[in-house]
Amino acid sequence: MKKYKVIFQPSGRRGEIEEGKTILEAAQALGVDIEALCGGKKVCGKCKVRIEEGFFEKDNIQSGMEHLSPLTEDEEKHIKPEDGPGIRLACAAEIHGDLKVFVPERSRAGKQVVRKAAKELSIKLDPAVKKYNVELPEPSLHDLTTGDMERVLKFLEEDYGLKGVSFDYEALKDLQDALRKGEWKITVSVWMDKEIVKVEPGFVEPSYGLAVDIGTTTVVGYLCDMNTGKVINTESMMNPQVPYGEDVMSRITYAMTNPDGLEKMQRAIIDGLNEIIERVSADLRTNGKNGGSAIVDMTVVFNTAMHHIFLGFNPEYIGRSPFIPAVQHSLNLKARDLGLKINPGSYVHILPIEAGFVGADNVGVLIAEEPYNQDEIVLIIDIGTNGELLLGNRERICSTSCATGPAFEGAQIKFGMRAAPGAIEKVKIDPETKECMYKVIGKADWHTHLQEVNAKGICGSGIIDAVAEMFKAGIIDRSGKFNMDLETPRVRRGTDGKPEYVLAWADETSIGTDITITQADVRALQLAKGALYAGAKLMMKKMGIEKLDRVVLAGAFGSYIDRESALTLGMFPDCDIEKVYAVGNAAGDGARMALLNRGKRTEADEKARFVEFMEIAVEPEFEKEFMMAMHIPHMKDKFPNLKALLEKKKVPVTVKG
Amino acid sequence: MKKYKVIFQPSGRRGEIEEGKTILEAAQALGVDIEALCGGKKVCGKCKVRIEEGFFEKDNIQSGMEHLSPLTEDEEKHIKPEDGPGIRLACAAEIHGDLKVFVPERSRAGKQVVRKAAKELSIKLDPAVKKYNVELPEPSLHDLTTGDMERVLKFLEEDYGLKGVSFDYEALKDLQDALRKGEWKITVSVWMDKEIVKVEPGFVEPSYGLAVDIGTTTVVGYLCDMNTGKVINTESMMNPQVPYGEDVMSRITYAMTNPDGLEKMQRAIIDGLNEIIERVSADLRTNGKNGGSAIVDMTVVFNTAMHHIFLGFNPEYIGRSPFIPAVQHSLNLKARDLGLKINPGSYVHILPIEAGFVGADNVGVLIAEEPYNQDEIVLIIDIGTNGELLLGNRERICSTSCATGPAFEGAQIKFGMRAAPGAIEKVKIDPETKECMYKVIGKADWHTHLQEVNAKGICGSGIIDAVAEMFKAGIIDRSGKFNMDLETPRVRRGTDGKPEYVLAWADETSIGTDITITQADVRALQLAKGALYAGAKLMMKKMGIEKLDRVVLAGAFGSYIDRESALTLGMFPDCDIEKVYAVGNAAGDGARMALLNRGKRTEADEKARFVEFMEIAVEPEFEKEFMMAMHIPHMKDKFPNLKALLEKKKVPVTVKG
Repeated sequence: MKKYKVIFQPSGRRGEIEEGKTILEAAQALGVDIEALCGGKKVCGKCKVRIEEGFFEKDNIQSGMEHLSPLTEDEEKHIKPEDGPGIRLACAAEIHGDLKVFVPERSRAGKQVVRKAAKELSIKLDPAVKKYNVELPEPSLHDLTTGDMERVLKFLEEDYGLKGVSFDYEALKDLQDALRKGEWKITVSVWMDKEIVKVEPGFVEPSYGLAVDIGTTTVVGYLCDMNTGKVINTESMMNPQVPYGEDVMSRITYAMTNPDGLEKMQRAIIDGLNEIIERVSADLRTNGKNGGSAIVDMTVVFNTAMHHIFLGFNPEYIGRSPFIPAVQHSLNLKARDLGLKINPGSYVHILPIEAGFVGADNVGVLIAEEPYNQDEIVLIIDIGTNGELLLGNRERICSTSCATGPAFEGAQIKFGMRAAPGAIEKVKIDPETKECMYKVIGKADWHTHLQEVNAKGICGSGIIDAVAEMFKAGIIDRSGKFNMDLETPRVRRGTDGKPEYVLAWADETSIGTDITITQADVRALQLAKGALYAGAKLMMKKMGIEKLDRVVLAGAFGSYIDRESALTLGMFPDCDIEKVYAVGNAAGDGARMALLNRGKRTEADEKARFVEFMEIAVEPEFEKEFMMAMHIPHMKDKFPNLKALLEKKKVPVTVKG
Repeated sequence: MKKYKVIFQPSGRRGEIEEGKTILEAAQALGVDIEALCGGKKVCGKCKVRIEEGFFEKDNIQSGMEHLSPLTEDEEKHIKPEDGPGIRLACAAEIHGDLKVFVPERSRAGKQVVRKAAKELSIKLDPAVKKYNVELPEPSLHDLTTGDMERVLKFLEEDYGLKGVSFDYEALKDLQDALRKGEWKITVSVWMDKEIVKVEPGFVEPSYGLAVDIGTTTVVGYLCDMNTGKVINTESMMNPQVPYGEDVMSRITYAMTNPDGLEKMQRAIIDGLNEIIERVSADLRTNGKNGGSAIVDMTVVFNTAMHHIFLGFNPEYIGRSPFIPAVQHSLNLKARDLGLKINPGSYVHILPIEAGFVGADNVGVLIAEEPYNQDEIVLIIDIGTNGELLLGNRERICSTSCATGPAFEGAQIKFGMRAAPGAIEKVKIDPETKECMYKVIGKADWHTHLQEVNAKGICGSGIIDAVAEMFKAGIIDRSGKFNMDLETPRVRRGTDGKPEYVLAWADETSIGTDITITQADVRALQLAKGALYAGAKLMMKKMGIEKLDRVVLAGAFGSYIDRESALTLGMFPDCDIEKVYAVGNAAGDGARMALLNRGKRTEADEKARFVEFMEIAVEPEFEKEFMMAMHIPHMKDKFPNLKALLEKKKVPVTVKG
């Protein structure tokens, strides 16, 4: 295969790349970060690069557009005149000659900020795996019981009252040498009072567990000290399945249309988890053993599609009516059967799923928030690439899922980006002047355009803020339409002739262009929030609920959402703002609870069956509700709480109340 | 690495062999069979080959002794002047030039005759794995239970009363597609009413199990139809661990002295079993799946050392006092955890071990013979590379093991060989003329030296016959010493000056030399039988047993042993010859019983603990008993039954009675 020299600027990384590879593949091979939100599927348009033209003496290469495959239709759609000359999508342009490629700041991916950080949980420690010290007398010819295994089991029965315990095969293989190395003192890790999953020489106290939340876009692992319950390390990464499909449906399609598609995606997530295991446990490395082997228990939550792909189950049937999952109940699978590099004898506890796409992650939310123990009617919104809703109280709880699209995660937004340094995460707009101030991730303080700046895009919480603030400042009306009669240079028509609001001027940014919220961005957000609202509304109708007592915002960036902006936008029906809570990654909290307390596992299985699933999106009424819910905050519904709040704050916009 | 041309005659096989490899390795690489009873350890002396000298124009090679490493001490011990010139041990001579090697008939290994053939068992069919047909209605949106797994489990509970059944992960992965391929009809294989280990689309009746007996020297697999209990295929092979040590102790030593010794031997036996699985199940191959996947259950028996090595347990501690095994109880291990290529979700049932070297194979003998259900005092002798004894009745049963050495298997006997075509397996000597007749494996009839012949050696049952007949004919006395005053050319002094008896004259054989029983051969047999007798005697003493009601001869070639010869030799204390039974491979029978009837598994665990183990060889009395037991039939003990038998048959030899 012919190879060509490729040089990336400004990093200066270079290497030989095979003919026909894309610039994105070349960048990945050479360790150059290029933003590719859609995973190289030519839809997000985030990976624009500039091809340098000419002969570069220093590098001794001739670079130019003629060294690439012809411009594709996808590229024509995304590349605008204002992008300047020499622009291609890195994911689309194939290499057929030497190249010098410039990666603009805007196209550079940063390290994602962990927005799934763990909060402290107060829960009784009663883990599934417990450690027991065993001390045997030295064996003699006069013992009636002589087998190493039999003597350990006898001790467990006599000293701890543990009856009928068995040995995992891998643990059993370690037993003989551990007994002798520990001079007849060992520590056994017993799973559910039933099975010894690990044997260590001597008396060992530390015990570790891993709770994992596999989101469609982000994967997080929380390493917990099982003696204190505290999270001692957190690691996250982009879900390595993203290149196979940005959302749940496209991954299901990938599995259905590629003979080894399921296997590839399963391999990708297992490899990804092993990387998280390695990183999170690096400090636990002892005696040449990898740190992961110190992890004796693990719990996992995910939506139904991620669940199926992770387990190697065909996800085809959950994607279409009657939406049949392979399994609903929780599963305990050997780590070694899954290829996960924790202690090989240990079980991985897979939390149960509810129904449809409402999976183990929502069960995690459920056992973390416990609506089934409350009298108040609560709506829990878990915001991710898919939105999942729980509604009810101790009497009855319903769930549903809504395809919100990836707008909340910054995709399909012109300057959208993940929550990484440089992302605008909070926005305030002065209703009088229409001027704005914003907060950038990686900066300690709020910045206006007068201060030092380095914004390069806007992430989910920033978009929600921006659109809500634009509404409150009268820049857009409740249908989302721009008011073009305002006397401010920030509201203008873009090069495509469509209205936009300038959030940051070019000189405040690190990308050299104005960062704007476009009409299309506003529409994307309206679609996303409309789906959530319509889902909640239909559930309320079906359950005969008039009014929400409480709203819980959960999810990857749940705790970063400004609750007033969320209420203003109408992401959910009206509610007292004091009763809107942002709880962060509740799915991950649930995974940790199930790790720390085995009773929570039983509770999860019971309550997952208690929850009634509603397939909302197929309801004929959905379309109508969805259309009305696209308005800000809603076309018809009353928002007495919001109305009072806006009036109190003297916001010059009226909503129905 | 330099390579040389090597040509083997008479087969004509040739190839290029790396410098420094032995002739035996070259033969193995080129598919030339050379007998190597000791597995290439330079102790059996069976692999003699002749190096052709000179330049061979046709092959264009120069061959000769100078192309080999110098003669070793081991070779000097084995190579006798009568072997003629140019003789080397194939296992010792290393190649350093082109070679033409002649393999004499005597050194050629034949395909071993399966002497572990299965007899019919009459046992109630109640296997651990049972198949159930499941038929579900097509799923609809209105089902309360929607998961594929949950619906199958519900059906099993409602239609078959099977509660709390779980799914093996590998079986679960097959469920979705099986349900749809079978149009909502499937067959599940349920292990112990507890766990689904296999899922097949449609209603499937055939069900297969494999019972395996891993001997120190020979491995046999019996493929059973689980619906009829019949053995439908049997495959055997030499234990692939033989190259690492001929007997149990040498393999333990190998594991202790080589860092990866245990792993290598475990790999060897697993690979060997996979070959047996492939051969035995070749006809079960369907839809591109290997036949082994049709096997849903498996049982294994072996001695304690083979047990430990097979399972990857360190065998060091069972080899020395206080003889601590890793495990005594039976184990159920996933086939996939062991790397065995049967249905991956299935369990392999490892029968329990007793103590010391008395392993699961003897438990197999125990549950096949059921001495614990009998009033008669029975002595069960399981003859293999190790001899194992069971003694007792329903009141009390003891066991022990005796290092008999490999004489019974033809090793350490001048013309000894395995039970392969060309082996003399039965011998009769005329007490008057001292002439003999013998039966050769692979020939239909008895042959005398006047008939067509093709003997090339003598196997275990033949050696026992020959020595017993020599005693009865007065050729040897009860101390094993030759009577050199007989007027027969068959009794003579060999080239080494030591007495020997000619069993077959050179012109009757296919090896061109007389086949003899030497003084050393007689001694080797006396040592082996003396060990068995002394073991039995000491157990009787300790248990206060005066007299045996019954003797059972079991083992690889148990059913081929002539019981009169065995009694005459004094392989066991005196017993009515009508009450001596040869039962064949009782260990294998026990493995099959445990495969066909799950109650037998419980029985095995209970009875293995009921049996009292006696470490006989370390008793101070053992040495004395052993010396006396080397006599034929014994130095002092009375043999009233044998005496009567010999008198009735007018055998001109008197024994104490």
